[in-house]
Amino acid sequence: MSTTKKARTQPPYELLYWPSIPGRGEFIRLALEATGTSYTDTANASKDGIQSMLALINPEATIDADGNPPAFAPPILRVPGEGKNGKSLVLYQTPSILAYLGDKLGLAGEDEIEKQWILSHMLTALDLNNEAHDTHHPIASQLYYEDQKEEALKKAKDFRESRIPKFFGFFERVLKGNEEGQGKFLVGSKLSYADTTVWHVLNGLKFAFPKEVEAREKDYPTLFETFYPSVQEQSGLKEYLASERRLPYSQGIFRYYPELDRQ
Amino acid sequence: MSTTKKARTQPPYELLYWPSIPGRGEFIRLALEATGTSYTDTANASKDGIQSMLALINPEATIDADGNPPAFAPPILRVPGEGKNGKSLVLYQTPSILAYLGDKLGLAGEDEIEKQWILSHMLTALDLNNEAHDTHHPIASQLYYEDQKEEALKKAKDFRESRIPKFFGFFERVLKGNEEGQGKFLVGSKLSYADTTVWHVLNGLKFAFPKEVEAREKDYPTLFETFYPSVQEQSGLKEYLASERRLPYSQGIFRYYPELDRQ
Repeated sequence: MSTTKKARTQPPYELLYWPSIPGRGEFIRLALEATGTSYTDTANASKDGIQSMLALINPEATIDADGNPPAFAPPILRVPGEGKNGKSLVLYQTPSILAYLGDKLGLAGEDEIEKQWILSHMLTALDLNNEAHDTHHPIASQLYYEDQKEEALKKAKDFRESRIPKFFGFFERVLKGNEEGQGKFLVGSKLSYADTTVWHVLNGLKFAFPKEVEAREKDYPTLFETFYPSVQEQSGLKEYLASERRLPYSQGIFRYYPELDRQ
Repeated sequence: MSTTKKARTQPPYELLYWPSIPGRGEFIRLALEATGTSYTDTANASKDGIQSMLALINPEATIDADGNPPAFAPPILRVPGEGKNGKSLVLYQTPSILAYLGDKLGLAGEDEIEKQWILSHMLTALDLNNEAHDTHHPIASQLYYEDQKEEALKKAKDFRESRIPKFFGFFERVLKGNEEGQGKFLVGSKLSYADTTVWHVLNGLKFAFPKEVEAREKDYPTLFETFYPSVQEQSGLKEYLASERRLPYSQGIFRYYPELDRQ
Protein backbone atom coordinates (compact mmCIF):
# COMPACT_ATOMS: atom_id res chain seq x y z
CA MET A 1 0.00 0.00 0.00
CA SER A 2 1.48 3.27 -1.06
CA THR A 3 1.86 6.33 1.10
CA THR A 4 1.37 9.08 -1.43
CA LYS A 5 0.02 12.47 -0.42
CA LYS A 6 -3.41 11.43 -1.71
CA ALA A 7 -3.44 8.34 0.46
CA ARG A 8 -2.86 10.35 3.61
CA THR A 9 -5.87 12.60 2.95
CA GLN A 10 -8.26 9.65 2.54
CA PRO A 11 -10.06 7.97 5.44
CA PRO A 12 -8.67 4.60 6.53
CA TYR A 13 -10.62 2.41 4.12
CA GLU A 14 -11.14 -1.16 5.26
CA LEU A 15 -11.93 -3.94 2.77
CA LEU A 16 -13.62 -7.00 4.24
CA TYR A 17 -13.64 -10.07 2.03
CA TRP A 18 -12.78 -13.77 2.07
CA PRO A 19 -9.03 -14.27 2.50
CA SER A 20 -6.60 -15.86 0.03
CA ILE A 21 -8.60 -15.44 -3.21
CA PRO A 22 -8.99 -12.44 -5.54
CA GLY A 23 -12.77 -12.99 -5.84
CA ARG A 24 -15.09 -10.01 -5.99
CA GLY A 25 -12.83 -8.23 -3.51
CA GLU A 26 -10.34 -7.79 -6.34
CA PHE A 27 -12.50 -5.22 -8.11
CA ILE A 28 -12.30 -3.06 -4.97
CA ARG A 29 -8.57 -3.65 -4.54
CA LEU A 30 -7.88 -2.54 -8.12
CA ALA A 31 -9.75 0.75 -7.65
CA LEU A 32 -7.81 1.47 -4.46
CA GLU A 33 -4.44 0.40 -5.87
CA ALA A 34 -4.88 2.28 -9.16
CA THR A 35 -5.21 5.50 -7.18
CA GLY A 36 -2.47 4.80 -4.65
CA THR A 37 -5.03 4.79 -1.87
CA SER A 38 -4.11 3.30 1.49
CA TYR A 39 -6.42 0.57 2.79
CA THR A 40 -6.53 -2.43 5.08
CA ASP A 41 -7.43 -5.78 3.55
CA THR A 42 -8.54 -7.12 6.91
CA ALA A 43 -9.01 -10.83 6.25
CA ASN A 44 -5.64 -11.04 4.51
CA ALA A 45 -3.84 -8.82 7.05
CA SER A 46 -4.12 -11.19 10.02
CA LYS A 47 -5.27 -14.69 10.83
CA ASP A 48 -8.25 -13.45 12.82
CA GLY A 49 -9.16 -10.79 10.27
CA ILE A 50 -11.87 -12.94 8.78
CA GLN A 51 -13.85 -12.66 12.04
CA SER A 52 -14.55 -8.97 11.36
CA MET A 53 -16.06 -9.88 8.01
CA LEU A 54 -18.04 -12.81 9.39
CA ALA A 55 -19.54 -10.55 12.07
CA LEU A 56 -20.94 -8.27 9.36
CA ILE A 57 -22.64 -11.11 7.48
CA ASN A 58 -23.87 -12.81 10.66
CA PRO A 59 -27.26 -14.28 9.67
CA GLU A 60 -28.83 -12.93 12.87
CA ALA A 61 -27.66 -9.30 12.50
CA THR A 62 -30.19 -6.53 11.96
CA ILE A 63 -28.14 -3.37 12.52
CA ASP A 64 -24.59 -2.77 13.72
CA ALA A 65 -23.37 -0.59 16.59
CA ASP A 66 -22.84 2.31 14.17
CA GLY A 67 -26.35 2.15 12.69
CA ASN A 68 -25.50 0.29 9.48
CA PRO A 69 -27.80 -2.33 7.97
CA PRO A 70 -26.54 -5.91 7.73
CA ALA A 71 -24.51 -6.95 4.66
CA PHE A 72 -25.83 -9.74 2.44
CA ALA A 73 -22.37 -10.90 1.38
CA PRO A 74 -18.82 -9.64 0.98
CA PRO A 75 -17.09 -7.61 -0.37
CA ILE A 76 -17.82 -5.05 2.32
CA LEU A 77 -16.23 -1.62 2.70
CA ARG A 78 -15.99 0.08 6.09
CA VAL A 79 -15.14 3.77 6.18
CA PRO A 80 -14.54 5.21 9.66
CA GLY A 81 -16.08 8.64 10.21
CA GLU A 82 -18.25 8.63 7.09
CA GLY A 83 -21.42 7.01 8.48
CA LYS A 84 -24.39 8.37 10.40
CA ASN A 85 -23.39 10.79 13.20
CA GLY A 86 -19.73 10.57 12.25
CA LYS A 87 -19.56 6.85 12.93
CA SER A 88 -18.38 4.16 10.51
CA LEU A 89 -20.12 3.69 7.17
CA VAL A 90 -20.53 0.07 6.07
CA LEU A 91 -21.29 -0.71 2.43
CA TYR A 92 -21.74 -4.01 0.63
CA GLN A 93 -22.29 -5.10 -3.01
CA THR A 94 -19.36 -4.71 -5.40
CA PRO A 95 -21.09 -2.17 -7.70
CA SER A 96 -22.17 -0.05 -4.75
CA ILE A 97 -18.65 0.04 -3.30
CA LEU A 98 -17.13 0.88 -6.68
CA ALA A 99 -19.65 3.67 -7.26
CA TYR A 100 -18.81 5.11 -3.84
CA LEU A 101 -15.05 4.85 -4.24
CA GLY A 102 -15.23 5.98 -7.85
CA ASP A 103 -16.58 9.36 -6.73
CA LYS A 104 -14.07 9.73 -3.90
CA LEU A 105 -10.99 8.57 -5.82
CA GLY A 106 -11.57 10.21 -9.19
CA LEU A 107 -12.34 6.99 -11.06
CA ALA A 108 -15.88 7.95 -12.08
CA GLY A 109 -15.41 10.19 -15.11
CA GLU A 110 -15.47 13.92 -15.79
CA ASP A 111 -19.17 14.60 -15.32
CA GLU A 112 -22.51 13.07 -14.35
CA ILE A 113 -22.97 11.64 -17.84
CA GLU A 114 -19.67 9.78 -17.89
CA LYS A 115 -20.34 8.64 -14.33
CA GLN A 116 -23.52 6.86 -15.47
CA TRP A 117 -21.81 5.23 -18.45
CA ILE A 118 -18.95 4.03 -16.25
CA LEU A 119 -21.45 2.52 -13.81
CA SER A 120 -23.29 0.77 -16.66
CA HIS A 121 -20.14 -0.70 -18.24
CA MET A 122 -18.85 -1.89 -14.85
CA LEU A 123 -22.16 -3.64 -14.19
CA THR A 124 -21.90 -5.34 -17.57
CA ALA A 125 -18.39 -6.58 -16.78
CA LEU A 126 -19.64 -7.95 -13.47
CA ASP A 127 -22.43 -9.78 -15.31
CA LEU A 128 -19.71 -11.48 -17.36
CA ASN A 129 -17.83 -12.23 -14.13
CA ASN A 130 -20.95 -13.85 -12.64
CA GLU A 131 -21.57 -15.90 -15.76
CA ALA A 132 -17.96 -17.13 -15.62
CA HIS A 133 -18.58 -18.29 -12.05
CA ASP A 134 -21.76 -20.09 -13.08
CA THR A 135 -19.88 -22.17 -15.67
CA HIS A 136 -18.43 -24.28 -12.85
CA HIS A 137 -21.44 -23.90 -10.51
CA PRO A 138 -24.54 -23.90 -12.74
CA ILE A 139 -26.80 -25.70 -10.25
CA ALA A 140 -25.79 -24.61 -6.74
CA SER A 141 -22.97 -22.55 -5.22
CA GLN A 142 -22.97 -24.76 -2.16
CA LEU A 143 -22.37 -28.02 -4.05
CA TYR A 144 -18.97 -29.21 -5.22
CA TYR A 145 -18.03 -28.74 -8.85
CA GLU A 146 -17.73 -32.49 -9.18
CA ASP A 147 -21.39 -32.84 -8.24
CA GLN A 148 -22.52 -30.58 -11.10
CA LYS A 149 -19.86 -31.34 -13.69
CA GLU A 150 -22.27 -32.68 -16.31
CA GLU A 151 -24.25 -29.44 -16.18
CA ALA A 152 -21.06 -27.39 -16.04
CA LEU A 153 -19.88 -28.88 -19.34
CA LYS A 154 -23.10 -27.74 -21.02
CA LYS A 155 -23.10 -24.32 -19.38
CA ALA A 156 -19.45 -23.70 -20.27
CA LYS A 157 -20.09 -24.59 -23.91
CA ASP A 158 -22.81 -21.96 -24.17
CA PHE A 159 -20.66 -19.47 -22.27
CA ARG A 160 -17.70 -19.96 -24.60
CA GLU A 161 -19.66 -20.02 -27.84
CA SER A 162 -22.36 -17.41 -27.21
CA ARG A 163 -21.65 -15.28 -24.19
CA ILE A 164 -17.90 -14.61 -24.49
CA PRO A 165 -18.15 -13.26 -28.06
CA LYS A 166 -21.20 -11.17 -27.15
CA PHE A 167 -19.43 -9.47 -24.24
CA PHE A 168 -16.05 -9.13 -25.97
CA GLY A 169 -17.75 -7.66 -29.01
CA PHE A 170 -19.61 -5.18 -26.86
CA PHE A 171 -16.52 -3.88 -25.05
CA GLU A 172 -14.63 -3.70 -28.36
CA ARG A 173 -17.41 -1.48 -29.72
CA VAL A 174 -17.48 0.73 -26.62
CA LEU A 175 -13.72 1.28 -26.97
CA LYS A 176 -14.00 2.03 -30.69
CA GLY A 177 -16.86 4.49 -30.13
CA ASN A 178 -14.92 6.42 -27.47
CA GLU A 179 -12.44 8.16 -29.76
CA GLU A 180 -10.85 10.32 -27.08
CA GLY A 181 -9.95 7.19 -25.13
CA GLN A 182 -7.72 5.96 -27.99
CA GLY A 183 -8.60 2.37 -27.18
CA LYS A 184 -7.17 2.72 -23.69
CA PHE A 185 -10.25 3.82 -21.77
CA LEU A 186 -13.91 2.80 -22.06
CA VAL A 187 -15.20 6.27 -21.18
CA GLY A 188 -13.46 9.61 -21.69
CA SER A 189 -9.70 9.99 -21.64
CA LYS A 190 -8.69 8.73 -18.23
CA LEU A 191 -8.84 5.56 -16.17
CA SER A 192 -12.15 4.65 -14.51
CA TYR A 193 -13.32 1.75 -12.38
CA ALA A 194 -15.04 0.39 -15.49
CA ASP A 195 -11.58 -0.06 -17.04
CA THR A 196 -10.12 -1.83 -14.01
CA THR A 197 -13.21 -4.05 -13.74
CA VAL A 198 -13.24 -5.09 -17.40
CA TRP A 199 -9.48 -5.67 -17.23
CA HIS A 200 -9.76 -8.03 -14.28
CA VAL A 201 -12.56 -10.04 -15.85
CA LEU A 202 -10.46 -10.45 -19.02
CA ASN A 203 -7.49 -11.46 -16.89
CA GLY A 204 -9.60 -14.03 -15.07
CA LEU A 205 -10.98 -15.43 -18.32
CA LYS A 206 -7.45 -15.81 -19.68
CA PHE A 207 -6.73 -17.95 -16.61
CA ALA A 208 -9.95 -19.98 -16.69
CA PHE A 209 -10.41 -20.39 -20.45
CA PRO A 210 -6.92 -19.93 -21.93
CA LYS A 211 -7.57 -21.73 -25.23
CA GLU A 212 -10.90 -20.05 -25.79
CA VAL A 213 -9.58 -16.55 -25.17
CA GLU A 214 -6.44 -17.13 -27.23
CA ALA A 215 -8.55 -18.29 -30.17
CA ARG A 216 -10.76 -15.22 -29.99
CA GLU A 217 -8.34 -12.39 -29.07
CA LYS A 218 -7.56 -11.49 -32.68
CA ASP A 219 -11.22 -10.70 -33.33
CA TYR A 220 -11.13 -7.92 -30.73
CA PRO A 221 -7.88 -6.07 -31.40
CA THR A 222 -8.74 -2.87 -29.53
CA LEU A 223 -9.71 -4.83 -26.44
CA PHE A 224 -6.73 -7.19 -26.39
CA GLU A 225 -3.93 -5.30 -28.14
CA THR A 226 -4.54 -1.77 -26.85
CA PHE A 227 -6.87 -1.72 -23.84
CA TYR A 228 -5.71 -4.80 -21.94
CA PRO A 229 -1.95 -4.10 -21.98
CA SER A 230 -2.52 -0.39 -21.38
CA VAL A 231 -4.60 -0.85 -18.22
CA GLN A 232 -2.10 -3.18 -16.58
CA GLU A 233 0.71 -0.69 -17.24
CA GLN A 234 -1.11 2.13 -15.42
CA SER A 235 0.83 3.61 -12.54
CA GLY A 236 -0.32 2.00 -9.30
CA LEU A 237 -1.75 -1.05 -11.02
CA LYS A 238 1.58 -2.10 -12.50
CA GLU A 239 3.26 -2.10 -9.11
CA TYR A 240 0.32 -3.83 -7.47
CA LEU A 241 0.10 -6.60 -10.06
CA ALA A 242 3.80 -7.36 -9.51
CA SER A 243 3.38 -7.39 -5.72
CA GLU A 244 2.46 -10.16 -3.31
CA ARG A 245 -0.83 -8.38 -2.59
CA ARG A 246 -2.12 -9.60 -5.96
CA LEU A 247 -3.47 -13.00 -4.99
CA PRO A 248 -3.31 -15.97 -7.38
CA TYR A 249 -6.47 -17.52 -8.80
CA SER A 250 -7.43 -20.82 -7.21
CA GLN A 251 -10.89 -22.01 -6.11
CA GLY A 252 -12.78 -18.76 -6.53
CA ILE A 253 -14.73 -17.26 -9.42
CA PHE A 254 -12.09 -17.98 -12.06
CA ARG A 255 -11.00 -21.63 -11.97
CA TYR A 256 -9.05 -23.59 -14.51
CA TYR A 257 -10.82 -26.81 -15.39
CA PRO A 258 -9.34 -27.95 -18.74
CA GLU A 259 -12.54 -29.81 -19.62
CA LEU A 260 -14.55 -26.56 -19.53
CA ASP A 261 -12.19 -24.78 -21.93
CA ARG A 262 -12.22 -25.08 -25.72
CA GLN A 263 -11.05 -28.57 -26.71
CA MET B 1 -49.30 8.21 -16.57
CA SER B 2 -50.21 10.98 -14.26
CA THR B 3 -49.90 14.67 -14.97
CA THR B 4 -48.95 16.01 -11.58
CA LYS B 5 -46.94 19.20 -11.21
CA LYS B 6 -43.81 17.08 -10.67
CA ALA B 7 -44.34 15.23 -13.92
CA ARG B 8 -44.47 18.43 -15.95
CA THR B 9 -41.11 19.62 -14.63
CA GLN B 10 -39.31 16.39 -15.55
CA PRO B 11 -37.74 15.74 -18.95
CA PRO B 12 -39.65 13.40 -21.28
CA TYR B 13 -38.22 10.10 -20.02
CA GLU B 14 -38.29 7.27 -22.54
CA LEU B 15 -38.08 3.64 -21.43
CA LEU B 16 -36.91 1.18 -24.07
CA TYR B 17 -37.52 -2.47 -23.29
CA TRP B 18 -39.01 -5.63 -24.79
CA PRO B 19 -42.78 -5.24 -25.25
CA SER B 20 -45.54 -7.26 -23.55
CA ILE B 21 -43.62 -8.53 -20.49
CA PRO B 22 -42.78 -6.85 -17.17
CA GLY B 23 -39.18 -8.12 -17.27
CA ARG B 24 -36.38 -5.92 -16.00
CA GLY B 25 -38.20 -2.91 -17.46
CA GLU B 26 -40.67 -3.24 -14.60
CA PHE B 27 -38.16 -2.01 -12.04
CA ILE B 28 -37.86 1.22 -14.01
CA ARG B 29 -41.63 1.53 -14.49
CA LEU B 30 -42.24 1.19 -10.75
CA ALA B 31 -39.80 4.01 -9.93
CA LEU B 32 -41.47 6.28 -12.47
CA GLU B 33 -45.03 5.34 -11.48
CA ALA B 34 -44.38 5.62 -7.73
CA THR B 35 -43.41 9.24 -8.26
CA GLY B 36 -46.15 10.13 -10.74
CA THR B 37 -43.52 10.79 -13.39
CA SER B 38 -44.57 10.99 -17.02
CA TYR B 39 -42.72 8.66 -19.42
CA THR B 40 -43.05 6.87 -22.72
CA ASP B 41 -42.81 3.08 -22.72
CA THR B 42 -41.84 3.04 -26.37
CA ALA B 43 -42.05 -0.64 -27.29
CA ASN B 44 -45.48 -0.93 -25.66
CA ALA B 45 -46.74 2.40 -27.00
CA SER B 46 -46.78 1.42 -30.68
CA LYS B 47 -46.24 -1.59 -32.89
CA ASP B 48 -43.01 -0.19 -34.32
CA GLY B 49 -41.74 0.99 -30.95
CA ILE B 50 -39.49 -2.01 -30.55
CA GLN B 51 -37.40 -0.79 -33.49
CA SER B 52 -36.08 2.14 -31.40
CA MET B 53 -34.87 -0.31 -28.78
CA LEU B 54 -33.38 -2.71 -31.29
CA ALA B 55 -31.41 0.14 -32.88
CA LEU B 56 -29.73 0.84 -29.53
CA ILE B 57 -28.63 -2.78 -29.02
CA ASN B 58 -27.60 -3.23 -32.67
CA PRO B 59 -24.56 -5.52 -32.48
CA GLU B 60 -22.65 -3.31 -34.92
CA ALA B 61 -23.17 0.00 -33.07
CA THR B 62 -20.22 1.82 -31.55
CA ILE B 63 -21.68 5.24 -30.69
CA ASP B 64 -25.03 6.90 -31.41
CA ALA B 65 -25.74 10.22 -33.12
CA ASP B 66 -25.83 11.96 -29.71
CA GLY B 67 -22.47 10.58 -28.57
CA ASN B 68 -23.74 7.78 -26.35
CA PRO B 69 -22.00 4.40 -26.11
CA PRO B 70 -23.87 1.31 -27.30
CA ALA B 71 -26.16 -0.52 -24.85
CA PHE B 72 -25.44 -4.14 -24.00
CA ALA B 73 -29.09 -5.01 -23.38
CA PRO B 74 -32.38 -3.42 -22.35
CA PRO B 75 -33.77 -1.84 -20.24
CA ILE B 76 -32.51 1.41 -21.68
CA LEU B 77 -33.46 4.93 -20.58
CA ARG B 78 -33.28 7.87 -22.97
CA VAL B 79 -33.45 11.38 -21.53
CA PRO B 80 -33.67 14.19 -24.12
CA GLY B 81 -31.53 17.20 -23.29
CA GLU B 82 -29.51 15.56 -20.52
CA GLY B 83 -26.65 14.11 -22.59
CA LYS B 84 -23.40 15.60 -23.88
CA ASN B 85 -23.84 19.06 -25.42
CA GLY B 86 -27.53 19.13 -24.50
CA LYS B 87 -28.32 16.08 -26.63
CA SER B 88 -30.03 12.92 -25.45
CA LEU B 89 -28.54 10.83 -22.67
CA VAL B 90 -28.80 7.06 -23.15
CA LEU B 91 -28.33 4.76 -20.15
CA TYR B 92 -28.53 0.98 -19.87
CA GLN B 93 -28.32 -1.56 -17.01
CA THR B 94 -31.23 -1.67 -14.55
CA PRO B 95 -29.16 -0.62 -11.48
CA SER B 96 -27.61 2.29 -13.37
CA ILE B 97 -31.01 3.57 -14.53
CA LEU B 98 -32.49 3.22 -11.04
CA ALA B 99 -29.53 5.05 -9.47
CA TYR B 100 -29.97 7.88 -11.99
CA LEU B 101 -33.74 8.14 -11.59
CA GLY B 102 -33.51 7.67 -7.83
CA ASP B 103 -31.55 10.91 -7.55
CA LYS B 104 -33.85 12.82 -9.88
CA LEU B 105 -37.15 11.55 -8.48
CA GLY B 106 -36.41 11.55 -4.77
CA LEU B 107 -36.29 7.77 -4.37
CA ALA B 108 -32.67 7.59 -3.19
CA GLY B 109 -32.85 8.49 0.50
CA GLU B 110 -32.17 11.54 2.62
CA ASP B 111 -28.38 11.69 2.33
CA GLU B 112 -25.33 10.10 0.70
CA ILE B 113 -25.27 7.35 3.29
CA GLU B 114 -28.84 6.23 2.72
CA LYS B 115 -28.24 6.53 -1.02
CA GLN B 116 -25.50 3.92 -0.83
CA TRP B 117 -27.55 1.54 1.31
CA ILE B 118 -30.50 1.86 -1.08
CA LEU B 119 -28.22 1.06 -4.01
CA SER B 120 -26.82 -1.98 -2.19
CA HIS B 121 -30.23 -3.40 -1.23
CA MET B 122 -31.58 -2.88 -4.76
CA LEU B 123 -28.60 -4.76 -6.20
CA THR B 124 -29.28 -7.61 -3.78
CA ALA B 125 -32.93 -7.77 -4.86
CA LEU B 126 -31.81 -7.89 -8.50
CA ASP B 127 -29.46 -10.76 -7.66
CA LEU B 128 -32.50 -12.65 -6.38
CA ASN B 129 -34.36 -11.67 -9.56
CA ASN B 130 -31.53 -13.08 -11.69
CA GLU B 131 -31.39 -16.29 -9.70
CA ALA B 132 -35.15 -16.70 -10.18
CA HIS B 133 -34.60 -16.41 -13.93
CA ASP B 134 -31.85 -19.00 -13.85
CA THR B 135 -34.14 -21.58 -12.25
CA HIS B 136 -35.83 -22.09 -15.62
CA HIS B 137 -32.75 -21.33 -17.72
CA PRO B 138 -29.77 -22.76 -15.81
CA ILE B 139 -27.77 -23.76 -18.89
CA ALA B 140 -28.42 -21.21 -21.62
CA SER B 141 -30.79 -18.24 -22.08
CA GLN B 142 -31.05 -18.99 -25.75
CA LEU B 143 -32.30 -22.57 -25.34
CA TYR B 144 -35.90 -23.51 -24.60
CA TYR B 145 -36.90 -24.39 -21.05
CA GLU B 146 -37.85 -27.85 -22.28
CA ASP B 147 -34.27 -28.41 -23.40
CA GLN B 148 -32.87 -27.73 -19.93
CA LYS B 149 -35.71 -29.00 -17.77
CA GLU B 150 -33.66 -31.68 -16.02
CA GLU B 151 -31.15 -29.10 -14.89
CA ALA B 152 -33.93 -26.62 -14.06
CA LEU B 153 -35.46 -29.09 -11.62
CA LYS B 154 -32.15 -29.32 -9.75
CA LYS B 155 -31.50 -25.58 -9.85
CA ALA B 156 -35.02 -24.75 -8.65
CA LYS B 157 -34.68 -27.13 -5.71
CA ASP B 158 -31.55 -25.35 -4.51
CA PHE B 159 -33.15 -21.97 -5.16
CA ARG B 160 -36.24 -22.83 -3.11
CA GLU B 161 -34.43 -24.54 -0.25
CA SER B 162 -31.29 -22.42 0.12
CA ARG B 163 -31.53 -19.17 -1.75
CA ILE B 164 -35.09 -18.02 -1.06
CA PRO B 165 -34.75 -18.28 2.75
CA LYS B 166 -31.34 -16.58 2.63
CA PHE B 167 -32.68 -13.57 0.73
CA PHE B 168 -36.02 -13.37 2.58
CA GLY B 169 -34.20 -13.59 5.90
CA PHE B 170 -31.85 -10.81 4.86
CA PHE B 171 -34.60 -8.38 3.84
CA GLU B 172 -36.54 -9.22 7.01
CA ARG B 173 -33.46 -8.27 9.04
CA VAL B 174 -32.90 -5.05 7.11
CA LEU B 175 -36.51 -4.03 7.79
CA LYS B 176 -36.23 -4.90 11.49
CA GLY B 177 -32.99 -2.98 11.84
CA ASN B 178 -34.46 0.17 10.29
CA GLU B 179 -36.68 1.24 13.17
CA GLU B 180 -37.75 4.54 11.67
CA GLY B 181 -39.13 2.68 8.64
CA GLN B 182 -41.63 0.82 10.87
CA GLY B 183 -41.37 -2.22 8.63
CA LYS B 184 -42.61 -0.25 5.64
CA PHE B 185 -39.29 0.96 4.22
CA LEU B 186 -35.90 -0.71 3.92
CA VAL B 187 -33.97 2.52 4.47
CA GLY B 188 -35.10 5.63 6.35
CA SER B 189 -38.75 6.65 6.61
CA LYS B 190 -39.83 7.08 3.01
CA LEU B 191 -40.18 5.04 -0.15
CA SER B 192 -37.01 4.30 -2.16
CA TYR B 193 -36.30 2.38 -5.33
CA ALA B 194 -34.95 -0.41 -3.10
CA ASP B 195 -38.49 -0.83 -1.74
CA THR B 196 -40.13 -0.95 -5.17
CA THR B 197 -37.47 -3.37 -6.43
CA VAL B 198 -37.74 -5.78 -3.50
CA TRP B 199 -41.55 -5.58 -3.74
CA HIS B 200 -41.58 -6.55 -7.42
CA VAL B 201 -39.23 -9.49 -6.90
CA LEU B 202 -41.48 -10.76 -4.09
CA ASN B 203 -44.51 -10.29 -6.33
CA GLY B 204 -42.81 -12.24 -9.11
CA LEU B 205 -41.82 -15.05 -6.76
CA LYS B 206 -45.42 -15.32 -5.53
CA PHE B 207 -46.39 -15.87 -9.17
CA ALA B 208 -43.58 -18.29 -10.05
CA PHE B 209 -43.33 -20.26 -6.79
CA PRO B 210 -46.76 -19.84 -5.12
CA LYS B 211 -46.54 -22.89 -2.88
CA GLU B 212 -42.99 -22.21 -1.80
CA VAL B 213 -43.66 -18.57 -0.91
CA GLU B 214 -46.91 -19.39 0.86
CA ALA B 215 -45.15 -21.99 3.00
CA ARG B 216 -42.43 -19.54 3.99
CA GLU B 217 -44.27 -16.21 4.39
CA LYS B 218 -45.04 -16.71 8.07
CA ASP B 219 -41.31 -16.91 8.86
CA TYR B 220 -40.82 -13.35 7.61
CA PRO B 221 -43.72 -11.38 9.10
CA THR B 222 -42.24 -7.91 8.64
CA LEU B 223 -41.51 -8.59 4.99
CA PHE B 224 -44.85 -10.18 4.10
CA GLU B 225 -47.34 -8.68 6.56
CA THR B 226 -46.07 -5.10 6.80
CA PHE B 227 -43.66 -4.25 3.98
CA TYR B 228 -45.27 -6.04 1.04
CA PRO B 229 -48.85 -4.77 1.50
CA SER B 230 -47.61 -1.30 2.44
CA VAL B 231 -45.54 -0.79 -0.71
CA GLN B 232 -48.34 -1.78 -3.07
CA GLU B 233 -50.70 0.67 -1.35
CA GLN B 234 -48.35 3.61 -1.94
CA SER B 235 -49.88 6.44 -3.90
CA GLY B 236 -48.92 6.12 -7.55
CA LEU B 237 -48.12 2.42 -7.27
CA LYS B 238 -51.63 1.47 -6.21
CA GLU B 239 -53.17 3.14 -9.26
CA TYR B 240 -50.50 1.73 -11.56
CA LEU B 241 -50.88 -1.85 -10.33
CA ALA B 242 -54.63 -1.65 -11.00
CA SER B 243 -54.09 -0.24 -14.50
CA GLU B 244 -53.57 -1.90 -17.86
CA ARG B 245 -50.01 -0.58 -17.92
CA ARG B 246 -49.06 -3.26 -15.37
CA LEU B 247 -48.31 -6.17 -17.69
CA PRO B 248 -49.06 -9.78 -16.69
CA TYR B 249 -46.27 -12.28 -16.13
CA SER B 250 -45.84 -14.76 -18.97
CA GLN B 251 -42.62 -15.99 -20.59
CA GLY B 252 -40.19 -13.57 -18.96
CA ILE B 253 -38.13 -13.74 -15.77
CA PHE B 254 -40.95 -15.00 -13.55
CA ARG B 255 -42.65 -18.05 -15.08
CA TYR B 256 -45.01 -20.48 -13.47
CA TYR B 257 -43.87 -24.05 -14.04
CA PRO B 258 -45.65 -26.17 -11.38
CA GLU B 259 -42.88 -28.76 -11.45
CA LEU B 260 -40.31 -26.16 -10.31
CA ASP B 261 -42.39 -25.11 -7.30
CA ARG B 262 -42.57 -26.91 -3.95
CA GLN B 263 -44.36 -30.24 -4.41
